[in-house]
Amino acid sequence: MNSNSNNDKLYTFEKSLELFSRATKIIPGGIYGHMSPTVSVPGAVPYYTVKAKGCRYTDPDGNEYIDYMCAYGPMILGYNNPVVDEAAANQREMANTTNHPAPVMVELAEYMVDLIPIADWVFFAKNGGDMTTYAILTARAHTNRKKIVTVKGGYHGVAPWCTSLGHGGITPEDHVNILQVEWNDLEGFEKLVKSHRGEIAGFISMPYHHITFADQVMPAPGYWSGIEKICREEGIVLILDDVRAGFRLNMGGSNEYFGFKPDLICFSKAMANGYPISACVGRKELMNAASKVFFTGSFWMSAVPMAAALATLKEMVRTDAITKINRMGTLLMNGLREIGERHGLEIITSGPPSIPYIRFADDPNLYLNQIFCSEVTRRGSFFHPHHNWFLSAAHEEEDINETLNHAEAAIKVVKERYKQGALCY
Amino acid sequence: MNSNSNNDKLYTFEKSLELFSRATKIIPGGIYGHMSPTVSVPGAVPYYTVKAKGCRYTDPDGNEYIDYMCAYGPMILGYNNPVVDEAAANQREMANTTNHPAPVMVELAEYMVDLIPIADWVFFAKNGGDMTTYAILTARAHTNRKKIVTVKGGYHGVAPWCTSLGHGGITPEDHVNILQVEWNDLEGFEKLVKSHRGEIAGFISMPYHHITFADQVMPAPGYWSGIEKICREEGIVLILDDVRAGFRLNMGGSNEYFGFKPDLICFSKAMANGYPISACVGRKELMNAASKVFFTGSFWMSAVPMAAALATLKEMVRTDAITKINRMGTLLMNGLREIGERHGLEIITSGPPSIPYIRFADDPNLYLNQIFCSEVTRRGSFFHPHHNWFLSAAHEEEDINETLNHAEAAIKVVKERYKQGALCY
Repeated sequence: MNSNSNNDKLYTFEKSLELFSRATKIIPGGIYGHMSPTVSVPGAVPYYTVKAKGCRYTDPDGNEYIDYMCAYGPMILGYNNPVVDEAAANQREMANTTNHPAPVMVELAEYMVDLIPIADWVFFAKNGGDMTTYAILTARAHTNRKKIVTVKGGYHGVAPWCTSLGHGGITPEDHVNILQVEWNDLEGFEKLVKSHRGEIAGFISMPYHHITFADQVMPAPGYWSGIEKICREEGIVLILDDVRAGFRLNMGGSNEYFGFKPDLICFSKAMANGYPISACVGRKELMNAASKVFFTGSFWMSAVPMAAALATLKEMVRTDAITKINRMGTLLMNGLREIGERHGLEIITSGPPSIPYIRFADDPNLYLNQIFCSEVTRRGSFFHPHHNWFLSAAHEEEDINETLNHAEAAIKVVKERYKQGALCY
Repeated sequence: MNSNSNNDKLYTFEKSLELFSRATKIIPGGIYGHMSPTVSVPGAVPYYTVKAKGCRYTDPDGNEYIDYMCAYGPMILGYNNPVVDEAAANQREMANTTNHPAPVMVELAEYMVDLIPIADWVFFAKNGGDMTTYAILTARAHTNRKKIVTVKGGYHGVAPWCTSLGHGGITPEDHVNILQVEWNDLEGFEKLVKSHRGEIAGFISMPYHHITFADQVMPAPGYWSGIEKICREEGIVLILDDVRAGFRLNMGGSNEYFGFKPDLICFSKAMANGYPISACVGRKELMNAASKVFFTGSFWMSAVPMAAALATLKEMVRTDAITKINRMGTLLMNGLREIGERHGLEIITSGPPSIPYIRFADDPNLYLNQIFCSEVTRRGSFFHPHHNWFLSAAHEEEDINETLNHAEAAIKVVKERYKQGALCY
């Protein structure tokens, strides 16, 4: 296994590329969606994972990485966490996907209702996108209205209602009941509501604005309380899409971190440390409407991911994982800014430290960021140049320090390239 | 553990009902979707699974059942099949949900392209419904047309485009691009195509008609070849939704069983023996369009279900599982019809023996079927009165015989109730 802690031999990706070349023949795009290498810097990143443990993983070329994407969110207690895996194994030994749910479904639902302040009930599925669709259907069933307001650039999964025109197969008809506002535009929301009074079933939004290729934008002071007030007054169901940020800011939902009360919250990614599950929790008033939505899937009652979710949530509470994750993210962000400063290349960090995004100040096309993240990756820490990162409770101070060493070496390359004006990776 | 092989003490469901009463407080409907007890006969069936192995499972009251629903399809080699579970465990030990797919994704895709005659490429997701939506988006992207034709009463998941009005949250706007035909109505399809010439992107259908609360209807002679011909002539993408029947009729897709060639096939349920995965395979001509659809999910690249799928498909091929499943279904159907005949209550079986449906001849409201299935269930074999059943390769002749004993005892109760005119369970 290659490890770059003590030398500066750069990783190469021959075996990744070999596998990918086989893949492109028989899988559309080879690797698709958010994991597509075209979303990162093709050729400069690993394409496959062979082994993962804690906050580290190994690619087919034997290169080891300290991981700052955490499977794009699902990993939160470390890959192959023994506590979660033992709970999952015990349930698997009993039963997983059968004709009925297992008793653990009731336990998990009870635990989540206790854990999450706004939750009076819980519904489980597989994808985050299952839950955002379920939430808008519930809002429509509850209000007997049709329109849903979304934030421009927000991400709620891949269903046609939330995928932009221009992507394959999406039609204008998919959006006839969707209205859009800009992030943080309370006034715009108020205007929209006035011009569609009595037509809007729900407003769905992430807790803060985290789009790709751009800084993350936190809610402006008064934004969420203003949104909440208007929704209550106008009978609009307030839906928090906490699929990405959920359980990294507050165990009770990211709304608790920002101080507001939605009617429905969608969770997925981190809730079972990588086991496939999603959930929608809601207030009592919505429960009747929620039960009128016909929504089901072949694996939604599978018991193993429920046992894993219960173990993950309990372990996070027991170890105060969120404080740890936040601390690790803060160390990393401070360290990166300090390195940037020392080398005269200002690094801008945005978003909460547990789900941060970085870029260089003077880098409108993210070319420097692409060079920097690729050079860090080739030294043993996986950095994504266009997407927010994720920290986990498996990261330790030594991991962060090792990564800062990779960053130190990488920024020298960036500086060299910057001087030469060679800004493309 | 209760077992009713040697006595006629009937199962009761106190602990199931106790758990369910806790569940109804915190989960919409308590148990929702296709597993909701309201879809069966409430109070007369188990509500939870505690343990499952082979073709049997145990409920919270300690009652053991020979299972004829197979988790509504996913179980095909037996619960906790050691070959599948070992492959899954080996992959889990390495990595599951990470930043990238595992090499097994490429192996699985290559294996499926070899196994399935029409497949030139494969795409993976989690739900069957992910794939039916992906297929219609691919059809639209390929044809640059909007309309999709579906069969009335067909089931393709819970996305708004394929869920009827009347269900919570569904709007008429969700169906503006959906056209419908009756099952087996080739002439109706031809007329529809003529009146929407150049507008229809795709036709999606299950390989035969299996709705709930009714006999299954096989394709009429010439139906599928007629559909295929029209689709080819009119440039309509022919989509086979093989989520339910896939790998129970033919390892190459149920179209091979019925003798036609679709452009896309959607699989899920049985492909990994209960591990959560779905797939869409397609012809080369569609691959470019397929890669233009933006479609992804947090757990879609998870490696464990892919390793489980590869092991499941190989094990099914190695053991010729389909022949076995078909033989077990035939034994059961023959046995049930014989019992009905002997007791003067004609039993009608429909659909393929591996995915059969039964009802009594003189029973338009399925009351006799409800009594029969409930009485069989209370004796130790889980029969569903309204939904097609599923057989598996884990069923043995002795299991079928034991079940026929349960059926023999149960039909006597039906006969008694029939005489008394007490036709409600």
